[in-house]
Amino acid sequence: MLYFINDYSEGMAPEILDAMASSNMSKQSGYGDDEFCISAKEKIKKEIGKDAEIFFVSGGTQANKIVIASVLKNFEGVIAADTGHIAVHEAGAIENTGHKVFTLKSKDGKIDAGGIKRFCENFYADVNHEHMVYPGMVYISQPTEYGTLYSKKELEEINKVCKEYELLLFADGARLAYALGSSECDTSLKSIADLCDVFYIGGTKCGALLGEAIVFTNKDICKHFFTNMKLFGGVLAKSRVMGIQFDVLFSNGLYERLGKTGVDAAMKIKRALTEKGYELYLDSPTNQQFIVVDDLQREKLSENVAFGFMETLENGKHVIRFCTSWATDDEDVNKLIEIL
Amino acid sequence: MLYFINDYSEGMAPEILDAMASSNMSKQSGYGDDEFCISAKEKIKKEIGKDAEIFFVSGGTQANKIVIASVLKNFEGVIAADTGHIAVHEAGAIENTGHKVFTLKSKDGKIDAGGIKRFCENFYADVNHEHMVYPGMVYISQPTEYGTLYSKKELEEINKVCKEYELLLFADGARLAYALGSSECDTSLKSIADLCDVFYIGGTKCGALLGEAIVFTNKDICKHFFTNMKLFGGVLAKSRVMGIQFDVLFSNGLYERLGKTGVDAAMKIKRALTEKGYELYLDSPTNQQFIVVDDLQREKLSENVAFGFMETLENGKHVIRFCTSWATDDEDVNKLIEIL
Amino acid sequence: MLYFINDYSEGMAPEILDAMASSNMSKQSGYGDDEFCISAKEKIKKEIGKDAEIFFVSGGTQANKIVIASVLKNFEGVIAADTGHIAVHEAGAIENTGHKVFTLKSKDGKIDAGGIKRFCENFYADVNHEHMVYPGMVYISQPTEYGTLYSKKELEEINKVCKEYELLLFADGARLAYALGSSECDTSLKSIADLCDVFYIGGTKCGALLGEAIVFTNKDICKHFFTNMKLFGGVLAKSRVMGIQFDVLFSNGLYERLGKTGVDAAMKIKRALTEKGYELYLDSPTNQQFIVVDDLQREKLSENVAFGFMETLENGKHVIRFCTSWATDDEDVNKLIEIL
Amino acid sequence: MLYFINDYSEGMAPEILDAMASSNMSKQSGYGDDEFCISAKEKIKKEIGKDAEIFFVSGGTQANKIVIASVLKNFEGVIAADTGHIAVHEAGAIENTGHKVFTLKSKDGKIDAGGIKRFCENFYADVNHEHMVYPGMVYISQPTEYGTLYSKKELEEINKVCKEYELLLFADGARLAYALGSSECDTSLKSIADLCDVFYIGGTKCGALLGEAIVFTNKDICKHFFTNMKLFGGVLAKSRVMGIQFDVLFSNGLYERLGKTGVDAAMKIKRALTEKGYELYLDSPTNQQFIVVDDLQREKLSENVAFGFMETLENGKHVIRFCTSWATDDEDVNKLIEIL
Repeated sequence: MLYFINDYSEGMAPEILDAMASSNMSKQSGYGDDEFCISAKEKIKKEIGKDAEIFFVSGGTQANKIVIASVLKNFEGVIAADTGHIAVHEAGAIENTGHKVFTLKSKDGKIDAGGIKRFCENFYADVNHEHMVYPGMVYISQPTEYGTLYSKKELEEINKVCKEYELLLFADGARLAYALGSSECDTSLKSIADLCDVFYIGGTKCGALLGEAIVFTNKDICKHFFTNMKLFGGVLAKSRVMGIQFDVLFSNGLYERLGKTGVDAAMKIKRALTEKGYELYLDSPTNQQFIVVDDLQREKLSENVAFGFMETLENGKHVIRFCTSWATDDEDVNKLIEIL
Repeated sequence: MLYFINDYSEGMAPEILDAMASSNMSKQSGYGDDEFCISAKEKIKKEIGKDAEIFFVSGGTQANKIVIASVLKNFEGVIAADTGHIAVHEAGAIENTGHKVFTLKSKDGKIDAGGIKRFCENFYADVNHEHMVYPGMVYISQPTEYGTLYSKKELEEINKVCKEYELLLFADGARLAYALGSSECDTSLKSIADLCDVFYIGGTKCGALLGEAIVFTNKDICKHFFTNMKLFGGVLAKSRVMGIQFDVLFSNGLYERLGKTGVDAAMKIKRALTEKGYELYLDSPTNQQFIVVDDLQREKLSENVAFGFMETLENGKHVIRFCTSWATDDEDVNKLIEIL
Repeated sequence: MLYFINDYSEGMAPEILDAMASSNMSKQSGYGDDEFCISAKEKIKKEIGKDAEIFFVSGGTQANKIVIASVLKNFEGVIAADTGHIAVHEAGAIENTGHKVFTLKSKDGKIDAGGIKRFCENFYADVNHEHMVYPGMVYISQPTEYGTLYSKKELEEINKVCKEYELLLFADGARLAYALGSSECDTSLKSIADLCDVFYIGGTKCGALLGEAIVFTNKDICKHFFTNMKLFGGVLAKSRVMGIQFDVLFSNGLYERLGKTGVDAAMKIKRALTEKGYELYLDSPTNQQFIVVDDLQREKLSENVAFGFMETLENGKHVIRFCTSWATDDEDVNKLIEIL
Repeated sequence: MLYFINDYSEGMAPEILDAMASSNMSKQSGYGDDEFCISAKEKIKKEIGKDAEIFFVSGGTQANKIVIASVLKNFEGVIAADTGHIAVHEAGAIENTGHKVFTLKSKDGKIDAGGIKRFCENFYADVNHEHMVYPGMVYISQPTEYGTLYSKKELEEINKVCKEYELLLFADGARLAYALGSSECDTSLKSIADLCDVFYIGGTKCGALLGEAIVFTNKDICKHFFTNMKLFGGVLAKSRVMGIQFDVLFSNGLYERLGKTGVDAAMKIKRALTEKGYELYLDSPTNQQFIVVDDLQREKLSENVAFGFMETLENGKHVIRFCTSWATDDEDVNKLIEIL
């Protein structure tokens, strides 16, 4: 069986395993004060080219939940794509903190400045808006849940609308390595850091064993964030676990390199899919490739390949996903292409 | 100026004022144990023809918030029309208690059994549904926010789907008197009580000074509801305020009669609107009438009439609302008709 | 039976009932924009001698809950007396909003500046305080749940400690009329307004039918408070109910006069209790009098008087409460004294 | 410098590191369906000798928060020792979920059946208890935050009171290995599982890199617990991280052995402390030893040893803690004893 089902099937990048092993018995402070966390934070700050407050948590839903709940006021909600992770697949983690998720209709997994602007215009134009949830933040994913990318220009436009309506901008980077590793990506860690108030750098799906690095470039909104992390259950006593991983990921360009491995494999598969006449569901430049297949194709493929099932369309065809990762083997890619 | 702007512009039905005045210095227990609350509950139970647990709170958002938060589990959300009061105009009161509001596209303010069923089928068919909010309740309004009515048959169908998917059924009756007072309404308090697990009988918009009566016919779901009311800030020390009002409202058919007054006025206006060629936005058999007007009409009308503005349509025309009530004066109705 | 069981047994002050009756059919805007609310707010501002933002809600727990939840940050808690209403008798209304109630040991229902200071010193001295709930507010009641009063000097000292540790100061005035009506009270509405960031003026227990007036003299902390009220279920559509009541209460010194009626009756009872050798549980200068009785006395009294039971002491004796109010009849007081 | 400051200074037990390394590139399902989680759960069930539902989360506060919030009803709180972790050092994580923590005065870190019974008796005897938070659960720690142990008899008594008052019993086993590894401990995993409705087996402080295993022996209370974990941010995509660790910890008696290593070192230190005339703050049979020192002793010790500071007593002396762990080196213990 070939595995193209997700990007978290393996353990961790060998470089991280080595660092874990070699540091295992060193005695370290906890709760973020270990030498690895300190070093990792410096490296990330260097990479984004500006000062920031950085915190590590163990997973993506946790990152989204704690960031959003910490910065929104009681009466504010967060605007997201209707396909956004917080809107669908986090079991109401955001609502559980008391905040509404406003959903905008997405196109290829993305929302745009125009849609956000219209939403805010309508909100403030409503004579009853004091009886309604105020928009307080915009949540985007880079890359999106459908593998697509926001261009730098698109982010700039969204940033501009956010400033106009006093919305904070938060980017979920659960798969950020696969954006940075894509040749079609014109946003860097630096530009994301410049344009967002806060974002997170995904580890779990990008070669780490677990963990995400939350980066606040807007330092006004993260006062006592550690205590917020604690009360939401997001603080690890042994913070070294996070420190070691991100210290290695941000040494020698490893993070971007891991992303590139995944994207290169995906592009190879994408070219094969196109050549063989498969219908792409959308045009993804990153590690997730979505195609439309009929019953027969789906059944046939599933004999030899583990892939993701997304939905059945109105025409009866199915959207499936091939997902590569930092750990994808070129041999497996070749075998998959043969089968296609 | 003629006032057709809402159904809460005046104080209370004179019968209630009289009862308040005559009982004013009688000494009563508080927190629901006063003689008026006890009497009112008996009258309501008689009216619905079955046993029930009944509680009084001071407003509609409070009723919705406390009922929903009390009966849902952490991981459950509530299904509502996208035009439902809890979805739009309660400032996130439901999300504030940790629960997601799922919205279904409504038609004339209503959702139907088919839509609820499809939603649940899709939910349980999703392989990832354990990562998603579970549907736990259906919220409907009778009449709806657009004045329309669920027929008994429609409620029966919704009830059936709810049973199938273990959803509780909750009816918001903020304007229930105007359903009961409508000749097109084939649901009675009895049938609503039979088909819903819990509903509330609106006072604030139906002739009371303030307050709503929450009726649990499903007694399994309201254990310790008093304490839930307390912790959500919904308990009144002087419960007599509620008791007196609902005791009077449910004496001598007053509640339905107040509703009929409002609906009769609305029907008279509706007939005039139709005769004079106005475009009805939808066909409402209750106390709210929605019409589509152009800029000129809107401006003209606003010189002499206070009415509600709902929204501007894509064609540039406006949806406005004439709202009657238990207090609407026939003379005012005639004057309005002259102006139209 | 004589009723000295609480201060919410009757309806409302006759002046309020008159105003309700005479204004009943006038058409008013809702949600706080009615002419009575506007007038009442002006009168209260005049009374406190400074600008303020004022909001009306229907009950005390609601006032406490919404104020505290609106101004505290996620990681902050509120300091209260261990006998404070929010700490004991609100069914966890504060915790329900996500905030811890820190309790300080009280003396005669009061806490003091020294205790608050020690609490904060210990908190900030703790090396692990980032793992702990931050104190963010001090909650006091004037008069307290035991009828005692904070002196102006005590409030000034508490205010000073609050400033030192960046704590907001909030006074629960559920029975404020009985403080203002006491000859031993050296705090006025003006001094309370000067020394607290926010307080509420109790209506329910002080002659209103229902309702409390929340007064923010610190206007920095109540931005969008209306929307907070809405989402916590504390907004009344028919705000006139509140407006009329507080407009009357703050006309012609009625509020203080109602308080004085209750306190005068209580003082007469207190003198009789002392003369007849009853043991006072503590020295209360307001409308609640607590005495210690044995089994026999308790049983005997309960034959003719309805009073409150507080607790059984370790020596087997009982603390009971005689509570007077704005509605207490002098004849009843005389009858009680005869029985004692 | 000698490190006796806590039990989470090092990485993980070498056996776990080996298992992580050897399994690193194996492809595994996520979200709890990996082969390691399945195997670990079987081993734990075998160890406790009964069926159970088992879940893994990344830290102790998370375990406490999710368990408590998942099983309590809105109007219920949890009873804990005033020194309990949830009462002091979790930044209000429990209150953040809407629940009050009731604190009972502890003795040596423990509460007892008598105290719980009195609390419940008083609660139900209070005529106003419907206005108060209901006790719904008892939280204990085994060993406690002060290193002490509940005996089997004590747990049985607590269990009995819990049954009587319909309270769930939850044991926080953050340091459970150090209970199991103590010769003075007469509770086994089996007896804890028999007497508690739910408990967690601590990994983070007991030799794992991170993580805790939540064990529900009362399966009625954990329906949809996975979704609760998700919405509280406690689900790891790469569940293998947890599975591998607990699979190794519960192979060949490793978990208990790691605990014994820590306890043996602590007992050696305890004997030396006693011989050298140090004042023990209390008598701890596990890996945490608390002693009372004066300023001079504290300063002297701190030159060569990193230890924990707990509090300064009223007599000016200080309570400090020496903490050993699975990773404590015998050589370091000897060096410490020389210094004492």
